[in-house]
Amino acid sequence: MRVLGVDPGLTRCGLGVVDVAANRTATLVGVGVVGSSHELTLDARLLVIAEAIDQWLDAFKPEVLAIERVFAQTNVSTVMGVAQVSGVVMVAAARRGIPVAMHTPSEVKAAVTGNGRADKTLVTAMVTRLLRLSEPPRPADAADALALAIAHAWRSGNSFSKDPQGPTAAQKLWREAETKSKVKKNKEKPAPKWN
Amino acid sequence: MRVLGVDPGLTRCGLGVVDVAANRTATLVGVGVVGSSHELTLDARLLVIAEAIDQWLDAFKPEVLAIERVFAQTNVSTVMGVAQVSGVVMVAAARRGIPVAMHTPSEVKAAVTGNGRADKTLVTAMVTRLLRLSEPPRPADAADALALAIAHAWRSGNSFSKDPQGPTAAQKLWREAETKSKVKKNKEKPAPKWN
Repeated sequence: MRVLGVDPGLTRCGLGVVDVAANRTATLVGVGVVGSSHELTLDARLLVIAEAIDQWLDAFKPEVLAIERVFAQTNVSTVMGVAQVSGVVMVAAARRGIPVAMHTPSEVKAAVTGNGRADKTLVTAMVTRLLRLSEPPRPADAADALALAIAHAWRSGNSFSKDPQGPTAAQKLWREAETKSKVKKNKEKPAPKWN
Repeated sequence: MRVLGVDPGLTRCGLGVVDVAANRTATLVGVGVVGSSHELTLDARLLVIAEAIDQWLDAFKPEVLAIERVFAQTNVSTVMGVAQVSGVVMVAAARRGIPVAMHTPSEVKAAVTGNGRADKTLVTAMVTRLLRLSEPPRPADAADALALAIAHAWRSGNSFSKDPQGPTAAQKLWREAETKSKVKKNKEKPAPKWN
């Protein structure tokens, strides 16, 4: 399953494409951040992002687009821009018949780290590990988009839970990490030796 | 100046096209509401609206798109949908090189009725009168989109204030209405005999 994860934002919009196999193994396909300058008008900023999303959808042809579910309760100064970007992103997928899935940040963190309140450092460390990368993905703020893509594939996969082979290496790794992050109460730092 | 006014909303998105002459006379060109069903997914709802906006922009070729400025402080349950729709609408205009102007509801009410806190009844009555219609525009909730379009043309028109001919009939009507709405403290009902 190929998923494009989008972490919407006007100033920086994170994009991450991941292929997730039936055995839950996730592979990095593409990662990036599209930003728009504060000096542009709002409609021009949204257009910059819309055109980038169009390019990513056409280049990577994801089966699903996963996007962060936006809440009005969060940071009021940025939430409107985030919502406007998310609307633009969703329409780009809908125009191509690509289904859109929404997940909350805590759902993503729980899926990837086992802790719905994991900090950014832990999320990045787990994304790096799960994608078998030798170093954290760059740009750094695209890690959330990759986490979203991985989380979507894992959360949506009924097929995974019916796997007759039992847990795969990736599943074991995940469960182990889940336990670890719970035990350490989310205070751990990413350890370079993980890779 | 031809203006497309958009009152963004997921369930009902008001659209109104108005031609405003240099003497401030406003003429109705098109009015409508595009709605999307609660039964659709959010991305599908946004797509319905995006396609309608595309059609309106291509059919009426407005010089400017005027849209309500959305605030995070307003109704939390609907504001996210409104922001998502506004993002989609702004991008549609930006793709065509059509400038986007934003006005707050109170700016629109002040421009059209002379009272920034005018109620919907007064706004509709003034829109009906200013467009020289024999009855209020239908659908009723498209009146705000028409008010937005008229308000934009009037607020943006430096040329109007330099009119060497002095106030036109429409300007007099407007000033008279402005005074009237202030005097009556926004309690008046629309009077059918106005037309």
